[in-house]
Amino acid sequence: MSKIVTEIELRAPLDNVEEGTLEFEGKRYLDGRASDPRELGWMCGAPPPEDRRVTFESDTSFDFPQKRWSLSHMRELVATVNVWRGQGTPSQFEHSDKSADIDALAFADGDGRIRRFDGALLDTYADGIVVLHRGRTVYERYFGALEPQLPHACYSVTKSYAGTLTAAFVQEGVLDDSKMIPHYLPELKGTAWEDATLRQVMDMQTGLAHTEEYTDERSDVWAYRIASGRRPRPAGYLGAQTLCDYLRTVRKQGTHGEVFAYKTVNTEVMAWVMACVTGRSFAQLLHERLWAPLGCEEDGYVIVDPAGMPSAGGGLNATLRDLARFGELIRREGEWNGKQLIPASVVHDVQRGGDPAKFPYKGLPGYSYRSMWWVSHNELGAIEARGQHAQRLYVAPKAEMVIARFASHPLASAGHSDTISVPQMLALGRMLRE
Amino acid sequence: MSKIVTEIELRAPLDNVEEGTLEFEGKRYLDGRASDPRELGWMCGAPPPEDRRVTFESDTSFDFPQKRWSLSHMRELVATVNVWRGQGTPSQFEHSDKSADIDALAFADGDGRIRRFDGALLDTYADGIVVLHRGRTVYERYFGALEPQLPHACYSVTKSYAGTLTAAFVQEGVLDDSKMIPHYLPELKGTAWEDATLRQVMDMQTGLAHTEEYTDERSDVWAYRIASGRRPRPAGYLGAQTLCDYLRTVRKQGTHGEVFAYKTVNTEVMAWVMACVTGRSFAQLLHERLWAPLGCEEDGYVIVDPAGMPSAGGGLNATLRDLARFGELIRREGEWNGKQLIPASVVHDVQRGGDPAKFPYKGLPGYSYRSMWWVSHNELGAIEARGQHAQRLYVAPKAEMVIARFASHPLASAGHSDTISVPQMLALGRMLRE
Repeated sequence: MSKIVTEIELRAPLDNVEEGTLEFEGKRYLDGRASDPRELGWMCGAPPPEDRRVTFESDTSFDFPQKRWSLSHMRELVATVNVWRGQGTPSQFEHSDKSADIDALAFADGDGRIRRFDGALLDTYADGIVVLHRGRTVYERYFGALEPQLPHACYSVTKSYAGTLTAAFVQEGVLDDSKMIPHYLPELKGTAWEDATLRQVMDMQTGLAHTEEYTDERSDVWAYRIASGRRPRPAGYLGAQTLCDYLRTVRKQGTHGEVFAYKTVNTEVMAWVMACVTGRSFAQLLHERLWAPLGCEEDGYVIVDPAGMPSAGGGLNATLRDLARFGELIRREGEWNGKQLIPASVVHDVQRGGDPAKFPYKGLPGYSYRSMWWVSHNELGAIEARGQHAQRLYVAPKAEMVIARFASHPLASAGHSDTISVPQMLALGRMLRE
Repeated sequence: MSKIVTEIELRAPLDNVEEGTLEFEGKRYLDGRASDPRELGWMCGAPPPEDRRVTFESDTSFDFPQKRWSLSHMRELVATVNVWRGQGTPSQFEHSDKSADIDALAFADGDGRIRRFDGALLDTYADGIVVLHRGRTVYERYFGALEPQLPHACYSVTKSYAGTLTAAFVQEGVLDDSKMIPHYLPELKGTAWEDATLRQVMDMQTGLAHTEEYTDERSDVWAYRIASGRRPRPAGYLGAQTLCDYLRTVRKQGTHGEVFAYKTVNTEVMAWVMACVTGRSFAQLLHERLWAPLGCEEDGYVIVDPAGMPSAGGGLNATLRDLARFGELIRREGEWNGKQLIPASVVHDVQRGGDPAKFPYKGLPGYSYRSMWWVSHNELGAIEARGQHAQRLYVAPKAEMVIARFASHPLASAGHSDTISVPQMLALGRMLRE
């Protein structure tokens, strides 16, 4: 297949096309197979032809289907800082291949449609998936532009890394989650966080005059992204020059501690506290506490803002296997080859979850949120790290299972993939548990 | 020492200061010790204070002394592509420490002043140095912001990597260096390279209407850098958008094949030919032919332009030890652990050098230039890869010695460091040869 569609066709939703497309919210997009970036020729050639280039400055890097290339090549678009794996030998997972059984696994999606596991991956625009069961690799697949050694954008899966580290420092007495944010960051006096505790920030229970709508470019989350170096600056841009400058502009609205409200800026504040108190950047902490002791296979990296601050809200990029290693660490309650890298109490606290009464989020019924993790409270005891365009780390202790999954779904919001993925992951856990 | 000088003092040459400074071309600069970026606090803090930030967009990233931080942190400023080391175990050099003897080695610099080896490193703003003798590490030092695992800007040392690969492809029959450039790149018909052979390009014997003066921002080399993503674009920039677009604008002046004339754009044309013919990017080729088979310790990276093209003229960043591995490969005439990674004839051809009559460059008397290497024709049979701000790879077969040296000298041009370094490297070779 070497179908080439024109730029105009690619930028606009595709009408009058049925085969090789999927419809979301009244618009048609190339499907998981037809949007394969290699087949479409994105960034192929020396140099790539103009209508096949993904350039950061054009602000189309993250349009669909360009993002099917971009999410596996973020560092080729923006400035990044390395997360060093160290000099040790990579840890290895034994293999116990169950591909045939897993591919054929049938399950009913949220709309009642019976799907196969393999087809469901394509329909959720998976770029790759690794499944561990009892610490062994039972399933591993790559699609699109992803390769085993290539880091992929984690987006908000980053938050669960940051939340885990912060919770560890709280447990170890380095941080006190009952303190108000200005105790650590006097710079944030007079902002929304003036009277928010670190714990409220960790649990996204702050009242902020800050909107986070990925489909509306007027939403505050877009201004945050521009300030933090993750979107190009419009000509004559006079807004906040750095991530920390931006955080200083956020004002309070409502009450802290009352209700879950997902705002990425909370994660940046949390990570800023951690950096100030430890004297270590987020990238250094990831290296010291996770990448090196876990024996990660490849270096990761984090997008930095113009002042060199790594974005803990969504800037991490890691390989699929290294994401799976983190998941396996959490499944093992923070213990890795005889060493306790993260206190077990941190994992237990996340698994207990937050107060469901403070979690009004309808998209994930029965869930709660704790220390930047999504807690399913389901029969598998699963907790999830979740990032836009369908990034997932699914840790299911009662099935002894970890699923690491990267994707480049056309839509930022999770609804369309969750309808398929939530029952898909549950079905796989049930199968492996038996 | 925790001397902090103000932004204004740093930007301007320092007058009325003697201690801790050096004078070049009538201006005073902080010396190698006083310009230590950690001591000065560059990019320290979360976020770093405004007067200690190195930001790409401000176009001060490569001012002195900021560059003492920047050259060890290029990827935190610009977009880059990874040069993967692969999954193998790193190759190791045995150690045979001769630090004390080498530190104390006395030699006369070009002005007749007697210096010690260790002091000379400080006075040439070394960021690090590794010396191999008979394949063993005899000396290894890090200064400034450099660490063993951090890649440092190679600048034009990159050219010798690219020249070696191109010469290998010529030797292997993949490329024909007698062909005119448009044979491979029809895009360059009508440009300076229309009637230049690949060999003339490889040896920098082209007549180009293109100036390369690092001290004059009106020089063409600055426009090339802006187009290739290595300098920020001024507001309203309407010039070439990509490296290849830029190359298409270069016109002929003079005659090809007559005389050596150092123009970085030749290297970009050479690497573009290699990428087109092999179907592999420069970064992929570095991985396949050098980084993986050499057992490099860390991934390297290359700065990319807005179309994703790696800059072969000066965009490579590598660790000091991995640079030394490349030098040792050349010293071993392309053989590594029983495998011929680069044909020995490529190394022999470089060692024979170019025609000294076509090398009018007064800065390095007796030298010639071949396949993007500088050929000393000295008693050690040394060839050099040379990059601005005093980057060096010095391969001296008759002393069985390799010197890899990174630096962040205030001046781009090599004169002030060569006055010290050329006799310094020769003296070390003589000492080790005995």
